[in-house]
Amino acid sequence: METLISVDLARAPHDQDGVIHNRWHPDLPMVAKVKPGDSFRVECLDWTGGQIGNNDHARDVRDVDLTRVHYLSGPIAVDGAKPGDLLVVDILDVGVIQGSAWGFTGLFARENGGGFLVDHYPEARKACWDFNGIYTRSRHIPGVEFAGIMHPGLIGCLPSPELLKTWNTREAALVAKDPERVPPLALLPLAQSALMGRMAPEAAKKAAAEAARTIPPREHGGNCDIKNLTKGSKVYFPVYVPGAGLSMGDIHFSQGDGEITFCGAIEMAGYLDLRVGLIKDGMKKYAVTSPIFKPSPLEPRYRDYLIFEGISVDEGGGQHYLDAHVAYRRACLNAIEYLKNFGYSGEQAYAILGTAPVEGHISGIVDIPNACATLWLPTEIFDFDIKPEASGPRPQVTGVGALAKP
Amino acid sequence: METLISVDLARAPHDQDGVIHNRWHPDLPMVAKVKPGDSFRVECLDWTGGQIGNNDHARDVRDVDLTRVHYLSGPIAVDGAKPGDLLVVDILDVGVIQGSAWGFTGLFARENGGGFLVDHYPEARKACWDFNGIYTRSRHIPGVEFAGIMHPGLIGCLPSPELLKTWNTREAALVAKDPERVPPLALLPLAQSALMGRMAPEAAKKAAAEAARTIPPREHGGNCDIKNLTKGSKVYFPVYVPGAGLSMGDIHFSQGDGEITFCGAIEMAGYLDLRVGLIKDGMKKYAVTSPIFKPSPLEPRYRDYLIFEGISVDEGGGQHYLDAHVAYRRACLNAIEYLKNFGYSGEQAYAILGTAPVEGHISGIVDIPNACATLWLPTEIFDFDIKPEASGPRPQVTGVGALAKP
Amino acid sequence: METLISVDLARAPHDQDGVIHNRWHPDLPMVAKVKPGDSFRVECLDWTGGQIGNNDHARDVRDVDLTRVHYLSGPIAVDGAKPGDLLVVDILDVGVIQGSAWGFTGLFARENGGGFLVDHYPEARKACWDFNGIYTRSRHIPGVEFAGIMHPGLIGCLPSPELLKTWNTREAALVAKDPERVPPLALLPLAQSALMGRMAPEAAKKAAAEAARTIPPREHGGNCDIKNLTKGSKVYFPVYVPGAGLSMGDIHFSQGDGEITFCGAIEMAGYLDLRVGLIKDGMKKYAVTSPIFKPSPLEPRYRDYLIFEGISVDEGGGQHYLDAHVAYRRACLNAIEYLKNFGYSGEQAYAILGTAPVEGHISGIVDIPNACATLWLPTEIFDFDIKPEASGPRPQVTGVGALAKP
Amino acid sequence: METLISVDLARAPHDQDGVIHNRWHPDLPMVAKVKPGDSFRVECLDWTGGQIGNNDHARDVRDVDLTRVHYLSGPIAVDGAKPGDLLVVDILDVGVIQGSAWGFTGLFARENGGGFLVDHYPEARKACWDFNGIYTRSRHIPGVEFAGIMHPGLIGCLPSPELLKTWNTREAALVAKDPERVPPLALLPLAQSALMGRMAPEAAKKAAAEAARTIPPREHGGNCDIKNLTKGSKVYFPVYVPGAGLSMGDIHFSQGDGEITFCGAIEMAGYLDLRVGLIKDGMKKYAVTSPIFKPSPLEPRYRDYLIFEGISVDEGGGQHYLDAHVAYRRACLNAIEYLKNFGYSGEQAYAILGTAPVEGHISGIVDIPNACATLWLPTEIFDFDIKPEASGPRPQVTGVGALAKP
Repeated sequence: METLISVDLARAPHDQDGVIHNRWHPDLPMVAKVKPGDSFRVECLDWTGGQIGNNDHARDVRDVDLTRVHYLSGPIAVDGAKPGDLLVVDILDVGVIQGSAWGFTGLFARENGGGFLVDHYPEARKACWDFNGIYTRSRHIPGVEFAGIMHPGLIGCLPSPELLKTWNTREAALVAKDPERVPPLALLPLAQSALMGRMAPEAAKKAAAEAARTIPPREHGGNCDIKNLTKGSKVYFPVYVPGAGLSMGDIHFSQGDGEITFCGAIEMAGYLDLRVGLIKDGMKKYAVTSPIFKPSPLEPRYRDYLIFEGISVDEGGGQHYLDAHVAYRRACLNAIEYLKNFGYSGEQAYAILGTAPVEGHISGIVDIPNACATLWLPTEIFDFDIKPEASGPRPQVTGVGALAKP
Repeated sequence: METLISVDLARAPHDQDGVIHNRWHPDLPMVAKVKPGDSFRVECLDWTGGQIGNNDHARDVRDVDLTRVHYLSGPIAVDGAKPGDLLVVDILDVGVIQGSAWGFTGLFARENGGGFLVDHYPEARKACWDFNGIYTRSRHIPGVEFAGIMHPGLIGCLPSPELLKTWNTREAALVAKDPERVPPLALLPLAQSALMGRMAPEAAKKAAAEAARTIPPREHGGNCDIKNLTKGSKVYFPVYVPGAGLSMGDIHFSQGDGEITFCGAIEMAGYLDLRVGLIKDGMKKYAVTSPIFKPSPLEPRYRDYLIFEGISVDEGGGQHYLDAHVAYRRACLNAIEYLKNFGYSGEQAYAILGTAPVEGHISGIVDIPNACATLWLPTEIFDFDIKPEASGPRPQVTGVGALAKP
Repeated sequence: METLISVDLARAPHDQDGVIHNRWHPDLPMVAKVKPGDSFRVECLDWTGGQIGNNDHARDVRDVDLTRVHYLSGPIAVDGAKPGDLLVVDILDVGVIQGSAWGFTGLFARENGGGFLVDHYPEARKACWDFNGIYTRSRHIPGVEFAGIMHPGLIGCLPSPELLKTWNTREAALVAKDPERVPPLALLPLAQSALMGRMAPEAAKKAAAEAARTIPPREHGGNCDIKNLTKGSKVYFPVYVPGAGLSMGDIHFSQGDGEITFCGAIEMAGYLDLRVGLIKDGMKKYAVTSPIFKPSPLEPRYRDYLIFEGISVDEGGGQHYLDAHVAYRRACLNAIEYLKNFGYSGEQAYAILGTAPVEGHISGIVDIPNACATLWLPTEIFDFDIKPEASGPRPQVTGVGALAKP
Repeated sequence: METLISVDLARAPHDQDGVIHNRWHPDLPMVAKVKPGDSFRVECLDWTGGQIGNNDHARDVRDVDLTRVHYLSGPIAVDGAKPGDLLVVDILDVGVIQGSAWGFTGLFARENGGGFLVDHYPEARKACWDFNGIYTRSRHIPGVEFAGIMHPGLIGCLPSPELLKTWNTREAALVAKDPERVPPLALLPLAQSALMGRMAPEAAKKAAAEAARTIPPREHGGNCDIKNLTKGSKVYFPVYVPGAGLSMGDIHFSQGDGEITFCGAIEMAGYLDLRVGLIKDGMKKYAVTSPIFKPSPLEPRYRDYLIFEGISVDEGGGQHYLDAHVAYRRACLNAIEYLKNFGYSGEQAYAILGTAPVEGHISGIVDIPNACATLWLPTEIFDFDIKPEASGPRPQVTGVGALAKP
């Protein structure tokens, strides 16, 4: 497999020969070129570009600079790709960069945007994970080991100028509803810390002011954080600019549905092996306006789950109308309370749900006023039996191994 | 398997020896009694109590009286069950009542509450399904056949007086936010058409005025519409009243995650074979406040899915904040537009998503401002290949077999 | 589902209106007729025609008359089927006959042919199983419960005269190698106890003398005992006579690969719901000379197995040459010795392997002189944990519930 | 992951610092030492030690020197391991050595021992495979691509002197039955080409004369060729000598059950990441005399198979008695004839069955005189649809890409 884009983990993101960018813009210069049918390797920094260390404190998570993320590798031009095509990407492999077989999970502090359960867990915490072949364990979370479902959290093609404008317009309109909110309702273009790849300095300065941030998933895919885009899957991406301009990063060793801890999955530097193809005029042929994909035959397979329900009644008893967000949050909280019976701290349980191959389903979405979401926790990832028994839970883990604090 | 509760499909719900009720109330008299370890059969009417016919018009779906639903069988007393226990229910089997091997799917008109996509499909429609052993086909939707994942859409224990009060209070507070809304934000207690089982007339009249409607899922389970509560699964229900008072109904031959058509799944009359047990004081032992369950080894198994993404930007381009409801709606709409390329009408595609064993995942829920939901459509349920090809889709089905109209 | 062939479990096989036969012969009169596309139900006796009772002794297993088996329902004519066609059979459902929700497993005594491990377990034994929806338990084998994988052990089309002659010739040649052997090397035609369906008495007498016994699987399928022909599978059978002449029986609630106990699976009376179709001239088109099939999406699914290896060295240390039979026997014996550590008797463990959804793989077949076979035992069918632990096995079951003896 | 044993693919097996051996003997010096709980990497040559090239002729397969195989890495001492213990080995990962992302499949000529179907395919042939991440394709077999199930074909602990003697005695007894047979019935000790690791020359010479060849699987595991010992599985090996002495090699990128082509799987050089543990006195505690194992959560998953039956009647019509070897051979031949309809040569189809993730089941083993074996061919590994249709097969591949000849 030829390495099309390589990175040096010892160097900073802006010192990688221009193959890294952290904003979306139609004019980002292509840094490599491939033809349909080609296979190639792309190396990626972790999403923070090395801000987080493999240690036992969480000061780096607390102090992370979110204006700089995500650091992406690309864009890659695909010969013959035209707007309206579908770019077919086979994710042939996802792997670890030699000498960097570890990852991290952070709970962001409220000041940093927090995670899905920020009202319950508002402080910065961190877990580090060691990778042992297909498995991972964390010294900060005892009693749990699972096979990774490695995937890029973020991958997609460059937007067209029109699409970029649409994004900026609608996100600005949202922010305008509550401009003082902390955290903000959306992250608007910000020139500060923008890294515009190989764009010339003047052009880069101008483009950075309007380039889209990388946080949300959008029509092109982007930061979808779909754990199932793992090695062996096949993705069909809409193409918006000539050459497509495929970029990617934010590699995860594993993630639960929702990436609820925000920082979130097990974050890592790594590589992707890809093969590309084209369906000419595919967007129209198939009426496709967002990526579609086929899963891999190699996803980790579990049979025995413990499944938690949540409805759209919030923690204070307030009734929401078919709100799947609230319902899933309640399902997550129910699972956390359950796991506490076995000796885990709330933070540890929270981190397990964010990183393990947990499924999150929208089970019922029409039975007014309650949405019903379910969280599927595979039981075999634990070193002990977590299933309910008449005799009650036997606490199995101790405070040893708590998440790292700042 | 002893039949504990039997129904006669030729008779009306109120003419079934008092074993049917359509409201939740702590004082509903038990209609049968079992001991932990017992196995038994419970027969159930379809959720509408026979309002919908196996025919080729949708007037019955248009005119359905929703004040009468859902018709449930029970409540069943479990010897020794006390508030705070967990009632362990093995769903041993779910099946068809002899001579009634068919089901229906309705798209509700807006006046009747509509479904998940009511703004796109506001009119009443119906599909009827023939059951052929484990498989089903509809004369109204050509080219698709799948194995059922039969389950009770609705099952749970009676609420305590305190819990009932909590429900009524919070739902009334929601309705009060927009009392004139059509459809209403929630369905509050309504004495009209209430069927209170074997409660004496005077008491029934009084109780009906405060008894909870059966539409939403709540802490006790209830109308969760979780397709995975299928034959072979094991559920742990919180107990709120002495004897538990287990009731059930709304049997589905199959359903997609979300039951997006509202009426919705493939609705049927049928039976449940159950085995019950108790975990004494289990709610406290395991910190359980909502049902938890384990899936069945016999769920239909698929490998090849086509997966559609949706983000929380609405059809008009409006940006919503981490709204999984909007994201899943967009994923559903994306799948419908895709299926139209093969000759399906939008209504047919909508009905497929509501009935086939479709998975709905909350894939990303923290990447502000966009939630990302995915809809997993198993490709092998179709008689033809729906995967994207360079040559484009070949329309495969014709207008013949459109959904039934009023 | 129309019942095409019905049986009365209270009557003897020869008193079922001629719809039962227990030999294969081209001239067996068709007892029912269907068209391609038809769906229909066929009821079947258990393979012994009621010789075995639901009780706690094994005298019936010891004394069973094997000249009478298997009792099959059919043959069914398919309109338009011609020799050379493939008969496509969808097994839509397999179920229990009302009031007969039990089955049996017998270990045959050596005098009766024995089973796979007859040298180790030479005496007659029996286990009775209660069916609880999709699950079964035996009062004779504590601590184990599993979901059935119901299937016909025996199904296929009538042979042509030429095919019948081939069978008789080659099997007689085998018997001739050791004609005095007990049990015999093959079971040759035997007029005694032959039941020739609706054949006229004179013709039946003549045909019985040459009709093939039903014990072995042959080119037409027949007694394949393939557990995966379960509800939801699709089989393509070669057609040898005009009308095909499909017959079936020997229904199993569950079976492990190999049906090692011979009587063997969990044997039951029951019904099959079938749908038939034709691929004209399919044998030639696809070069098919034996049935081929596609598995069901509804097979029981397990993830966690304990897998035992066996090589082709016999129990006495004798070396065999690539003998998969010996290798699988050793794998089975290894599993039995393992299970004994948990309190099971050898007979109980033997019966578990014969009935539970155990997989038997030919893992290596070329590494002279040892074949390597593996037996896959799903761990979750046990009420307790059977996986190896540093602390050693904790015996979990007691002698209570031993297999029934004569 | 620390590399405990490394190899240099540019050097010969005997020039690898003594870490390679190709015979089993109790006195082989340990080449590395680990402690329970340790994780480590072991690199391995391909089983022939580089005799086969990535080219388009099969002269190397024709001329391979089988006295020299298999080249194994080890033995590794595990601190504290004693005879009678179980050595627990987690196979954490299996991977490709950088710059060697290819493999080969050979059909051995009859003179070289041949494969499972040597009477049908008696000549030397070869297919080379390119690895593309988790997938592989061969330029010699068009139209097929699948995910690998990488595993060591050969792994196990050193035998004790007593066990070695048992092996030699029983295998010699087999050979004595037909000493002139070509190929021989077993491969007895042979000093020629023996590589005895770090044994001193004199001792090595003596030991080589009695050391066991590596071809067959035996009680210690060894050359089991079980495809399911893939990354993520956990194996329990009997220990026979102090320190255990774990050796391994013969890595396969993929293999079908049976490894029917003998050379066979997709053979490769590669590495294994392992973690070891001990169950003290485990052989007695669990009555274990052969390895047992648990499968991986990461095996490739398929749902749609085409399944071929075989019975123990040989190609000439001869009847065999419950011979699973013959039955599986017939199932394989049936599958090959089927695949020929799509344009494959017999050799190509044979190579597909030997390399793709094909399942081989012993389905019925007691129905005298016919064993019934089934071969499960996953349909989705083909670029086109191989399922039977009324319209017949459409040939899809051409002679282009035939297997390489000498």
